[in-house]
Amino acid sequence: MIIVMKHRATAAEIGTVVSQVEVHGYKTHLSQGTERTIIGVVGDDRPLENHQFELLPGVEQVVRILKPFKLASRDFHPENTIFDVRGVTIGGPELVVMAGPCAVESRSQLLETAHAVKEAGATMLRGGAYKPRSSPYSFQGLGEDGLELLAEARDATGLPIITEVMSPEAVALVGRYTDIFQIGARNMQNYALLQAVGQTRTPVMLKRGLMGTVQEWLMSAEYILSGGNYQVILCERGIRTFETATRNTLDINAIPLLKQWTHLPVFGDPSHATGKWELVAPAAKAIIAAGADGLIIEVHPHPEVALSDGAQSLKPERFAELMNDLRRLAPAVGRTLS
Amino acid sequence: MIIVMKHRATAAEIGTVVSQVEVHGYKTHLSQGTERTIIGVVGDDRPLENHQFELLPGVEQVVRILKPFKLASRDFHPENTIFDVRGVTIGGPELVVMAGPCAVESRSQLLETAHAVKEAGATMLRGGAYKPRSSPYSFQGLGEDGLELLAEARDATGLPIITEVMSPEAVALVGRYTDIFQIGARNMQNYALLQAVGQTRTPVMLKRGLMGTVQEWLMSAEYILSGGNYQVILCERGIRTFETATRNTLDINAIPLLKQWTHLPVFGDPSHATGKWELVAPAAKAIIAAGADGLIIEVHPHPEVALSDGAQSLKPERFAELMNDLRRLAPAVGRTLS
Amino acid sequence: MIIVMKHRATAAEIGTVVSQVEVHGYKTHLSQGTERTIIGVVGDDRPLENHQFELLPGVEQVVRILKPFKLASRDFHPENTIFDVRGVTIGGPELVVMAGPCAVESRSQLLETAHAVKEAGATMLRGGAYKPRSSPYSFQGLGEDGLELLAEARDATGLPIITEVMSPEAVALVGRYTDIFQIGARNMQNYALLQAVGQTRTPVMLKRGLMGTVQEWLMSAEYILSGGNYQVILCERGIRTFETATRNTLDINAIPLLKQWTHLPVFGDPSHATGKWELVAPAAKAIIAAGADGLIIEVHPHPEVALSDGAQSLKPERFAELMNDLRRLAPAVGRTLS
Amino acid sequence: MIIVMKHRATAAEIGTVVSQVEVHGYKTHLSQGTERTIIGVVGDDRPLENHQFELLPGVEQVVRILKPFKLASRDFHPENTIFDVRGVTIGGPELVVMAGPCAVESRSQLLETAHAVKEAGATMLRGGAYKPRSSPYSFQGLGEDGLELLAEARDATGLPIITEVMSPEAVALVGRYTDIFQIGARNMQNYALLQAVGQTRTPVMLKRGLMGTVQEWLMSAEYILSGGNYQVILCERGIRTFETATRNTLDINAIPLLKQWTHLPVFGDPSHATGKWELVAPAAKAIIAAGADGLIIEVHPHPEVALSDGAQSLKPERFAELMNDLRRLAPAVGRTLS
Repeated sequence: MIIVMKHRATAAEIGTVVSQVEVHGYKTHLSQGTERTIIGVVGDDRPLENHQFELLPGVEQVVRILKPFKLASRDFHPENTIFDVRGVTIGGPELVVMAGPCAVESRSQLLETAHAVKEAGATMLRGGAYKPRSSPYSFQGLGEDGLELLAEARDATGLPIITEVMSPEAVALVGRYTDIFQIGARNMQNYALLQAVGQTRTPVMLKRGLMGTVQEWLMSAEYILSGGNYQVILCERGIRTFETATRNTLDINAIPLLKQWTHLPVFGDPSHATGKWELVAPAAKAIIAAGADGLIIEVHPHPEVALSDGAQSLKPERFAELMNDLRRLAPAVGRTLS
Repeated sequence: MIIVMKHRATAAEIGTVVSQVEVHGYKTHLSQGTERTIIGVVGDDRPLENHQFELLPGVEQVVRILKPFKLASRDFHPENTIFDVRGVTIGGPELVVMAGPCAVESRSQLLETAHAVKEAGATMLRGGAYKPRSSPYSFQGLGEDGLELLAEARDATGLPIITEVMSPEAVALVGRYTDIFQIGARNMQNYALLQAVGQTRTPVMLKRGLMGTVQEWLMSAEYILSGGNYQVILCERGIRTFETATRNTLDINAIPLLKQWTHLPVFGDPSHATGKWELVAPAAKAIIAAGADGLIIEVHPHPEVALSDGAQSLKPERFAELMNDLRRLAPAVGRTLS
Repeated sequence: MIIVMKHRATAAEIGTVVSQVEVHGYKTHLSQGTERTIIGVVGDDRPLENHQFELLPGVEQVVRILKPFKLASRDFHPENTIFDVRGVTIGGPELVVMAGPCAVESRSQLLETAHAVKEAGATMLRGGAYKPRSSPYSFQGLGEDGLELLAEARDATGLPIITEVMSPEAVALVGRYTDIFQIGARNMQNYALLQAVGQTRTPVMLKRGLMGTVQEWLMSAEYILSGGNYQVILCERGIRTFETATRNTLDINAIPLLKQWTHLPVFGDPSHATGKWELVAPAAKAIIAAGADGLIIEVHPHPEVALSDGAQSLKPERFAELMNDLRRLAPAVGRTLS
Repeated sequence: MIIVMKHRATAAEIGTVVSQVEVHGYKTHLSQGTERTIIGVVGDDRPLENHQFELLPGVEQVVRILKPFKLASRDFHPENTIFDVRGVTIGGPELVVMAGPCAVESRSQLLETAHAVKEAGATMLRGGAYKPRSSPYSFQGLGEDGLELLAEARDATGLPIITEVMSPEAVALVGRYTDIFQIGARNMQNYALLQAVGQTRTPVMLKRGLMGTVQEWLMSAEYILSGGNYQVILCERGIRTFETATRNTLDINAIPLLKQWTHLPVFGDPSHATGKWELVAPAAKAIIAAGADGLIIEVHPHPEVALSDGAQSLKPERFAELMNDLRRLAPAVGRTLS
């Protein structure tokens, strides 16, 4: 932390700032220029982040140098985090594609989709049993019945499953079924939920909030990691901007940026990021070309009657075409996809 | 709902759309132009919102006419909602000012602030016992001890209290102490929490999410109202935009817009909306001039050592000046403030 | 400027940075902490802003301390800038209200409006002769004929006029008629145009761009000021955000922020900032309550047939009501309006 | 255009709307539902866009069906636009990479860069002679001297050149040198400039404004096309959002969306879209994977002393590596790059 004093700060004002820092056990280092005095705080001063030195008389600006996340940082853990979910390796050179319907609607819908995405090459099955819907009058998911259908589809296909958990008290129940917890965009800063999944040892996919900065997102991952659960996947799914021609704006820059800043696996969700099935394939390819470790994609056998997100769901045959395209693309960007 | 067919849609395509609508029990009305056929759906078609008629062959565009919220709408309830909280009337001509520290830090800090804001004219006390913090390493609030201090400050001053609840399982505990539940910005779309407070009969202040549209915000209110809890206050607290010179961007337009669209009381939070204490007073006056029913403001006796949000907290003497300014302003915009 | 070196920066790397700074004639001041070395650059280092010290080996971060605008800054010119336009004082305690149609459409439309707004208390007439339209097929304004009608309306009513100039080569022509040049939002960073009006001695109203930060806006004002034209009004007219329920988002925070940062007069445009006539009056009151020096408002006798911006134009009788409201509001916020 | 009347609109109100439409020569088609009357306007009603039917009594909503751009639309011109610039084909299967320094700084800097990018496989040279800078005190470019150096570099390497034009009166001068006019992001809605380049027959690269929607961008292209200049390239270069970890947010969705909506060639600028050289290569690959026809990339032999945009410039050796990566990628996404 660097504290820049105002042009005409008095010696007394400088002294007060110095003593306010030192009372917390930090050393300071003064740099007296012709116009301004600069006070450097020596050491890891993250614990001081709440202290409003900006408000002390004579202070012009406080510059925080250290990034506020630690466990999620590559400084702390230089190698990529790689982990296994029922035989599927996440974060390694092999790309991982998770696919399935937005919501589990029925046994036949789920099983038909599960077999189709497996056939096309997906290695994990997605499907929502609890759906966060902006309207209380919309279909909210099948609940535990949906979880049971997911488990049945896993048994039938061998695909591990990922499904969303929406509240701390549902963590135990959902955890009995799922192989990966999905934390949805609206819950990126639902800290009680983050703490609850941090207490489990089930992997977590943390989706980016519509308005979450990359730094805030990593701070949310830090909540999970600091609970002792180190198996966290970050999933870019589009942010909210002024552009309304697409449902969200896929922040493709975030993918290589995350790869610099963190060791955690990075995925992309081209379905939510575009909101339009015609854009899903090009967005998926861009995500992989930008360096992501995998994708999560909505597939529905009959999108026009889907109970949610039909407009952004691929039909199985289009998903199969995309998988073929990705198989051509993967080696051109140093990855594999079998 | 209006379904616009493409230029060259065939009779068969039109027939399919019509039958897909009618199978749900709705009537349709066809308008055959020279270039396009337009299919109007007759009646309250909100239940059809999940149906992706956009995906049927030959469809160009689907236009939804009805706003998706009902109970929150002025169409449904033309008069202003007015209710009483321990003798304080919310939503009436008298402005209501809630004030207090961001976080309850200690008995002396809270009591000193409570007496000061009462003295200055505030009629309700705010203070956080559970704090949503972006870092797991930051001060997270005093928890139930904080709630007890709030109850003690209420006893000492007679001011009703408002405090934040962050998870569904905390609703019962917080509800034993607070007079109004505050739902924070990060939880605007935490549907499990909205449903939980909707089941109580304690009033709720629902803050706008950093990225929530006004329509989404009213849909979140709808979650509470549809649980049978009709005492909901909407609080504009700034949205996230590209401008970083202030912590958030106060969406002042939202205040008169809400007054048109909904019967619920509308408040503003100039502390979070600006993030800078020097801007709190002008923002507070703008909020009242735009037609809000009240304010919630952060006051701290020693902002420079506050454990959270010091930079945006007013000192008691500045808060008292602002109250004086508001007393002059209120009658000029048709309100009272005693 | 402060240059923060990386944790393990070598003495050679530090030496290179120091010599790269000193070669430009600046002194440096080293602060050697236990973990990092910090290099302070002594003096007004704004001329170094293009130098990418970030890219030198061993550099972690470069922190620029000084705001990049000078002539627009209150540091440079502590008192408010106040100037006179044909007898109307801009920037003083008396509020100034400019009103008139978005576009000059005809002699009768303009004269009818001019008389009506004068009657209601406006002291300046606005009207566009050249209109920036997003479509090349839309009405683009009457051009010089419109300028002549504005001059005629000024003669008839005594109201000074303000009109938009859209390109450098039009500055001479528009300048022969107008009392104030308006630079529209889309041209906030049209530097050739800013330089052209900076060479004149006619006052300029510089509207904020839809996506201009407050700092960039002041840098654009700096282009005009640095040409020697010191009569610049800043006009907040709404920024673009994710919210689409209103045409733009009025950044009300910007008004008190500008009053802190700059000595230039600050106006607000509630018509563009909301895009809806029903919201214009509350937004106008909020702008004044936040501390602005004046308003510019669209008034049209027949908004439903206006050739542009009808939806946000007030009818003369509603404008007169608003002026009455503002006369009550002004003294409550320390201003006058006669 | 569809005009939706309010629930209780009277026959007289409906009649007024109908006659207001028909007076402009359009036919109407009424659809009388149980709750609402809907009035369809028959024919190409784009000329009615200024008419504020929303303001007529009894009108609830006006829905515009037609996209406002015509010449830029794929409906109007289904095949891809392909054109030749001094032997380089734009818009065909072969990818085009334009590269060079942000600003022309000196003869040696430009020639060194030009030879290096040609060597690496670029087929066009970029370089700014006139630079739009947010500060009037920053380096503004070499002006005509810069244009002469560009022409010299073209002679030396055979690479056609692209350079920015910033004002209508500079079009003639810049046009004597350049092979493609670049319109910068800040000028996307500088209509006088768009009209001026629309009068020439020199190809134009139109960059997206920081806050321009895809639809507005195509309307700006329409200004150029409607002047008779059909050789327009659209270049996505990042939009402004709340995320500040990167300079801009690359809207990768816009690339496939444009490919659907328009026949014009689409490029991407990974330098401005990221603002950080470390992110340029992954962003460039994503742009190509998403379906763009080419790239424009900043390359500088000594970024640390560049007079502008050093932080986002690639060194020649890194640019050569990227070109190798793109040669592997191109065939995997159905393109060629020699």
